[in-house]
Amino acid sequence: MNKITVIGLDGKLPPEVDRMAERIGEDIANSGCVLICGGKKGVMEAACRGAKKAGGITVGILPSFDGSEANDYVDVVIPSGMGYARNTLVVSSGDAIVSLNGSTGTLSEIAMALNYGKPVFCIEGSGGVTDKVRNALADDKRVSQIKMVKAEDAIRECLKFI
Amino acid sequence: MNKITVIGLDGKLPPEVDRMAERIGEDIANSGCVLICGGKKGVMEAACRGAKKAGGITVGILPSFDGSEANDYVDVVIPSGMGYARNTLVVSSGDAIVSLNGSTGTLSEIAMALNYGKPVFCIEGSGGVTDKVRNALADDKRVSQIKMVKAEDAIRECLKFI
Amino acid sequence: MNKITVIGLDGKLPPEVDRMAERIGEDIANSGCVLICGGKKGVMEAACRGAKKAGGITVGILPSFDGSEANDYVDVVIPSGMGYARNTLVVSSGDAIVSLNGSTGTLSEIAMALNYGKPVFCIEGSGGVTDKVRNALADDKRVSQIKMVKAEDAIRECLKFI
Amino acid sequence: MNKITVIGLDGKLPPEVDRMAERIGEDIANSGCVLICGGKKGVMEAACRGAKKAGGITVGILPSFDGSEANDYVDVVIPSGMGYARNTLVVSSGDAIVSLNGSTGTLSEIAMALNYGKPVFCIEGSGGVTDKVRNALADDKRVSQIKMVKAEDAIRECLKFI
Repeated sequence: MNKITVIGLDGKLPPEVDRMAERIGEDIANSGCVLICGGKKGVMEAACRGAKKAGGITVGILPSFDGSEANDYVDVVIPSGMGYARNTLVVSSGDAIVSLNGSTGTLSEIAMALNYGKPVFCIEGSGGVTDKVRNALADDKRVSQIKMVKAEDAIRECLKFI
Repeated sequence: MNKITVIGLDGKLPPEVDRMAERIGEDIANSGCVLICGGKKGVMEAACRGAKKAGGITVGILPSFDGSEANDYVDVVIPSGMGYARNTLVVSSGDAIVSLNGSTGTLSEIAMALNYGKPVFCIEGSGGVTDKVRNALADDKRVSQIKMVKAEDAIRECLKFI
Repeated sequence: MNKITVIGLDGKLPPEVDRMAERIGEDIANSGCVLICGGKKGVMEAACRGAKKAGGITVGILPSFDGSEANDYVDVVIPSGMGYARNTLVVSSGDAIVSLNGSTGTLSEIAMALNYGKPVFCIEGSGGVTDKVRNALADDKRVSQIKMVKAEDAIRECLKFI
Repeated sequence: MNKITVIGLDGKLPPEVDRMAERIGEDIANSGCVLICGGKKGVMEAACRGAKKAGGITVGILPSFDGSEANDYVDVVIPSGMGYARNTLVVSSGDAIVSLNGSTGTLSEIAMALNYGKPVFCIEGSGGVTDKVRNALADDKRVSQIKMVKAEDAIRECLKFI
C-alpha cells in the first residue's frame, strides 16, 4: 500500500488549518493510501480524523513508549520510545510528505525528508515553517523537492510522485 | 487496535515451522489484531501470509531504508534505516510477542521484550533460541514473562494478556 | 567534561570555511571541551583536525555501521548504524552547537537542536543553510536560540551558555 | 583509538563482581583503549571507576536525554534519548564486548553483539545472564563468538581480537 506522511504543528490549530489537515486526511484515505504521522495532536490529529471519516488506515509513530499519547484516530500505534529520533521514521515511512504549519520539530522533518530525496508538499497559507522553509534553502539544489500547493490540490499532486 | 508482534528466524524454515507461523498469522487476523513484524522473510513472511489469508492488516518494520526488502504480505512498510535498532521498535509496538525458532536477532528481541515488561509466547517445538531462551534466565525474575505454548493455542493465550 | 557539537557540510569546503571550521576545532580543544560531530568529511573533518592540533578529544557519531568512514581525526568512533537518525544523537550530545555552511542534513540538525532547547551558534559568512536558517523561523519563538557569530568569537560565546 | 564495551547489571553488585568490573576498567585504560558503556550504575560505574583510576577515557551512552543520569566516572556523556534502542549503540561502538552479571537488558546487548559478529567475553562466575547465555544458543553457530574468561584475563584476551 502507498503511504503519505502528514507533518505539522503538535498543538492548538487555527480553525482553517484544522480544516486543511482534516481535508488532507480524507483525501489520503479516499486515494487508498495509508496515512503516516507522528501520532500526536494538532495537525496529526486533524489529519487522522479526516482519514477515519473516509474509512482509511492511520499509523502514528510516537516519540514516547506510552501508547496512550496517541490521538483517538490512530489505528496502529508505534510507541517508539526513541524521542525525536522518531522524526526520521515518520518521514522515512512516507512515499511523499505533506506539511502544514509547524515549528522546529516540523522543520527537522522537512529537512530530513529532503535529505532522503522525498517530495515535500507544503500547504500554502498554513503558516509556520511550512510557509517559510524555502527561505532557508534559497540556493540549495534540494529546494526543488519542495512544492507549494493548496490544501485541496495536495493529495492529487502527491499521487503524481508515488 | 490491538497489536501482536511475531518474531523469529529470517531464513528458510522447516516446513512445520512455516505452518506454525502461518497459523499464528491467521489467528492474529481472525482475532481482529494487527500483526507487527520485522518485515523480512522466514517466520515473518509466513506469519504475514497467514494474516493476509484471513484478511488482516500487517506492518513490517525493516532494518534498512529500502522498502523493497519487505516480504510480499506486508501492507504497511516502515523502512526504518536504523539497522538492528529497529528490533526495539518491533517489540515495543506489540502488546504481546510470539516467537518461533530464531538465532541471535530473535534472542535480542525476546530479551528486549522482557526488558519492556511484555509477555513473550514461545512456540514449543519451533526450535532455535525460542525453545532454549529460558535456560539463559534460570533464576531471573523476568523469566516468568515467558510462556511456552503450542502454536494452536498461542493467540488465544495472548489475548488474555491484551 | 563539557561538549560542543560542530555540524555542517559533508563535502568539499571553500578554503575560508575550512579555515573557520579548523579554528573552531582548535578553540574547542583549547577551552577543555570535547568536540562532538558526525564523524565524516568537510566541516567535521576540518574541525576535528583543528581539535587534534590543539591536543583535544574528538568523537564522531557515524550514520553507518562502518567505522572506516570516520575522518582521520576522530578519536572515538561511534558507528551508529542508524542512518540519519544519528543526527539526533549528534545534537543531543552537545551542550551547544556550532554550525557552518551545510544543506538539508545540517538544517535537520539545527532544527533538532532548537527543538531540544539548545543554543545554536551559526557562523556568519560560512554560507549554506547556516546563513539562512533564520529566514525559515521568522516569527517562531525558538529563533532566539540562534546566535549569528564570527568564527573567531564562536567558542567564547558558546562557553557563556555551558 | 580502540574501544572495549563493558555491559552488565545496572544495580547493586555483589562485592566480588564490583571488583571484577573495576579491574576490567583499569585493564582497559592500561591497554590504551577507550571504555564504552551504557553510562549508568552497577557494572558500568565500577568499570568506569577503574578506568579513571588508571587515567583512561570513558564514554557513557545513556538511554535518556538527561545527562545527569550518568555515573560520576563518565568523561563523555552521550544522552541518546532513545531508550533501549541505545543498547545497540553501546555494542556497535565496541571492538569487543565484556559482560558481567546482568539480566534481560544485558542479554539483549549480548545477543545484539553476537548478531553484529563481535566477540563477547563473558566473565566466569560473575553471575546472571553472563554465566548462562550459552545455554540459550546451544546449537547456534554464533555461540562460538562467546568466550568464557576469568576477570583477570579478559582484556588480554580481548586485545587478541582487536
